[in-house]
Amino acid sequence: MDSQLTPAVLSELRHILGERGLIIAANQLQTYECDGLTAFRVPPAAVVLPESTEQVQKILRVCHRERIPFVARGSGTGLSGGALPTEGSIVIGLSRMNRILSIDIPNQQITVQPGVINSNVTAAVSPQGYFYAPDPSSQTVCSIGGNIAENAGGAHCLKYGFTVTHVLEMTVVLPDGDIVTLGSKLPNAPGYDLAGVFIGSEGTLGVATEMTLRIMRKPETVQVILAAFNTISAAAQSVSDVIASCQLPAAMEIMDRLSIEAAELSVHPNYPACEALLLIELDGPQGEVDLQMAVVIDICKRNGAWETRLAVDENARFLVWKGRKAAFAAAGRLSPNYIVQDGVIPRTALPVVLEKLNAMAAGENLRVTNVFHAGDGNLHPIILYDRNNPGEEERAIDLSLRILDVCVEAGGSITGEHGVGREKQCSMSYMFADPDLETMQRLRRSFDPLNLSNPDKLFPTPRICGERSRGAYAPHSLETSGIAEVF
Amino acid sequence: MDSQLTPAVLSELRHILGERGLIIAANQLQTYECDGLTAFRVPPAAVVLPESTEQVQKILRVCHRERIPFVARGSGTGLSGGALPTEGSIVIGLSRMNRILSIDIPNQQITVQPGVINSNVTAAVSPQGYFYAPDPSSQTVCSIGGNIAENAGGAHCLKYGFTVTHVLEMTVVLPDGDIVTLGSKLPNAPGYDLAGVFIGSEGTLGVATEMTLRIMRKPETVQVILAAFNTISAAAQSVSDVIASCQLPAAMEIMDRLSIEAAELSVHPNYPACEALLLIELDGPQGEVDLQMAVVIDICKRNGAWETRLAVDENARFLVWKGRKAAFAAAGRLSPNYIVQDGVIPRTALPVVLEKLNAMAAGENLRVTNVFHAGDGNLHPIILYDRNNPGEEERAIDLSLRILDVCVEAGGSITGEHGVGREKQCSMSYMFADPDLETMQRLRRSFDPLNLSNPDKLFPTPRICGERSRGAYAPHSLETSGIAEVF
Repeated sequence: MDSQLTPAVLSELRHILGERGLIIAANQLQTYECDGLTAFRVPPAAVVLPESTEQVQKILRVCHRERIPFVARGSGTGLSGGALPTEGSIVIGLSRMNRILSIDIPNQQITVQPGVINSNVTAAVSPQGYFYAPDPSSQTVCSIGGNIAENAGGAHCLKYGFTVTHVLEMTVVLPDGDIVTLGSKLPNAPGYDLAGVFIGSEGTLGVATEMTLRIMRKPETVQVILAAFNTISAAAQSVSDVIASCQLPAAMEIMDRLSIEAAELSVHPNYPACEALLLIELDGPQGEVDLQMAVVIDICKRNGAWETRLAVDENARFLVWKGRKAAFAAAGRLSPNYIVQDGVIPRTALPVVLEKLNAMAAGENLRVTNVFHAGDGNLHPIILYDRNNPGEEERAIDLSLRILDVCVEAGGSITGEHGVGREKQCSMSYMFADPDLETMQRLRRSFDPLNLSNPDKLFPTPRICGERSRGAYAPHSLETSGIAEVF
Repeated sequence: MDSQLTPAVLSELRHILGERGLIIAANQLQTYECDGLTAFRVPPAAVVLPESTEQVQKILRVCHRERIPFVARGSGTGLSGGALPTEGSIVIGLSRMNRILSIDIPNQQITVQPGVINSNVTAAVSPQGYFYAPDPSSQTVCSIGGNIAENAGGAHCLKYGFTVTHVLEMTVVLPDGDIVTLGSKLPNAPGYDLAGVFIGSEGTLGVATEMTLRIMRKPETVQVILAAFNTISAAAQSVSDVIASCQLPAAMEIMDRLSIEAAELSVHPNYPACEALLLIELDGPQGEVDLQMAVVIDICKRNGAWETRLAVDENARFLVWKGRKAAFAAAGRLSPNYIVQDGVIPRTALPVVLEKLNAMAAGENLRVTNVFHAGDGNLHPIILYDRNNPGEEERAIDLSLRILDVCVEAGGSITGEHGVGREKQCSMSYMFADPDLETMQRLRRSFDPLNLSNPDKLFPTPRICGERSRGAYAPHSLETSGIAEVF
């Protein structure tokens, strides 16, 4: 189905991009046939590597004229198949658009290209005392363009908000090749908030080629405390109490016994052995953090924490986070295979939902370990299984889908931060009513009437989902995707 | 042009709404012929007063079938003519949809109808220690539905964000009568952020009939300080320094000498007589506020503040804000007529822009007084004039438009919080490139292909703006609009 890529079109692309900017050799295309969701693989018809907005515009003009679908790709670390090529598509690899274009410290802004690696933004402004807040765990390898596509979060988005809070303005090439400016460097611009709708649109509305990001002053101090509880419910209650107390920690994470054990086996963070570990990070001026920490410790103790341990220095804090960030990969120490699920529930529903999950896991004779962005109600259940036991993988997949059902039934969501992409598109109709999905589709068509920009993603389609199927889900494993640390 | 409102259609509307819910008598329609922008008046063909989502749906189905334009209206306090009827339109008055539907304290949410008055949301949750953050100065009379249409701000949106930050989920009736749910009660829902695009769309995408809002825990303490400076630049530098110091005050406002004098004449807040008054409010736990206040005072003094006066108690704080909120209405003490302008500039451009404005005013022999949401770079220049002096009104209008030009040229915006509506629609093409406006229009058509929902607003149209005119601007005066206090 790569018939649209005629020699004339290829020659035109080569003319736009130069010899180095066009990949068509089958062995080189393999690199681009999947992202972090390695269970799905489709080789693209070609890969282009533009270096400027103008080149992206020319590419999209060709795609538009020839009706060739395209898929933009950052670092390919996504976990939901958002950068999976569509059959016959051109992949637009943005890794060469990796320049920092300008830094404006007085207005706390930085302008970058989409291929810039997340942690390089902070690196660029760190000498002046600033940082870029969104911190997906893959931040040392994932790109800002990909972060925008997925509206990436991270442990600290509890306090600082998701990517959408930190992108002020973007240059976007629309699927017909028009170049537009979405958003504004100033607050509350007139007109529709098109930047807000583009961020998190998973590549379906066009290609962002330049973005102005908000940078923030580094806090004077950062402190992390570990609190050990006998039950997840007690830890969850502490999270609710901290939020109700008018404190806003930078991060609040819960790990259960199995994930603590896995982390110990993997990176030895020396966590207290307990049923539920609550990790709370506070940041701000020293005096404020001291005051807040006293309140937080008091709340934990009132909820039954039998140990509250402050990470005494930068090294201790680093080790605490290393354990938490390694939790997924560490699941490989507990089990030959596992599925990482990503769902959201109202914070207050945590005890009830966990009880259900545990009962469901027991019913399937499977082990499930849990790590949570507890402040946001974002669950990451990890279903452990052994592919060599007949039928176990199928039961694990089924369980992971039923966990999403439980999340939705509790008033929650099918994904907190990994995105819909290819993985969960069939679950969208379980979460949204038909008119809601149709309204999104209308918006999509208003940007992309020919359905060329990352088609067959995000929304359920009869071809992929059948008439009313939820599950085209397939497990992904961090060993195979090569990503060491992912939330 | 009310020919579409045939007796059969009126009878159908009466059947839907009951006798009390339909207004067609000319003298009763007068109330609805303008909003706070009283210079523009168009009587609607009819006014309907629904009490439920279902009634709104039935009304929009009739409008859709009969191709009748409609304009949703909250309290009619808007300053840009957003609720101005279109000729032949039906105004949908939402004042009867004023019920609080549910309160969920553990999840910090409240669900209301669009006619609920802004300050009544806080009143409903205040006994439990919570508040609703967006605080337009008209908050005792303006409605939540109107706040959503305009993405309303207020002095405290510096810290807490605009309305869009505080609306989680909405029930919306689309222009074809379909009912959809936009947004989510949980963070970072999958799919496009349609709630974000609806909020601030000035009534052009449909009618929100139910909304779940975020409520926040009241801060333990609130403190306000007044700092007196010899120059606006010194006050502005203090604002930049406070933000760069990693402090985030609840509010930062600057008033110039003329607006201080006006406030004194009007409500006697006993401000220090100075060239520039900086008002900074801090809120949070007592200990934190004490620490922050010391830093803030130090910054002000280093920038030359010769008096820093802490409002010692609740009464003193109330008086400080009363003076600030009265600044617009108080302009009437200085001059028989005035125009309130609303523009945004990068915070760092404040000194340069002010110098330009003053030179322009001097050139026209007109006085301009200024109050600023300084933290956000949101200017409210007030142009004083006397309509009885021949040509003075025309020069004042022209000056007020040229002030917007200066804002846009400085990298700013034509409106910070009053909206575009009818007033500034012709200025949109001065701020946005054609492809940007066309992308917004495509989005609009995807929601409203028949252009029935508040048509002829927000975007420039040849009929209203001519081929390339910026200014269909007309001055509004708070005396005539009957709003006592507006930012």
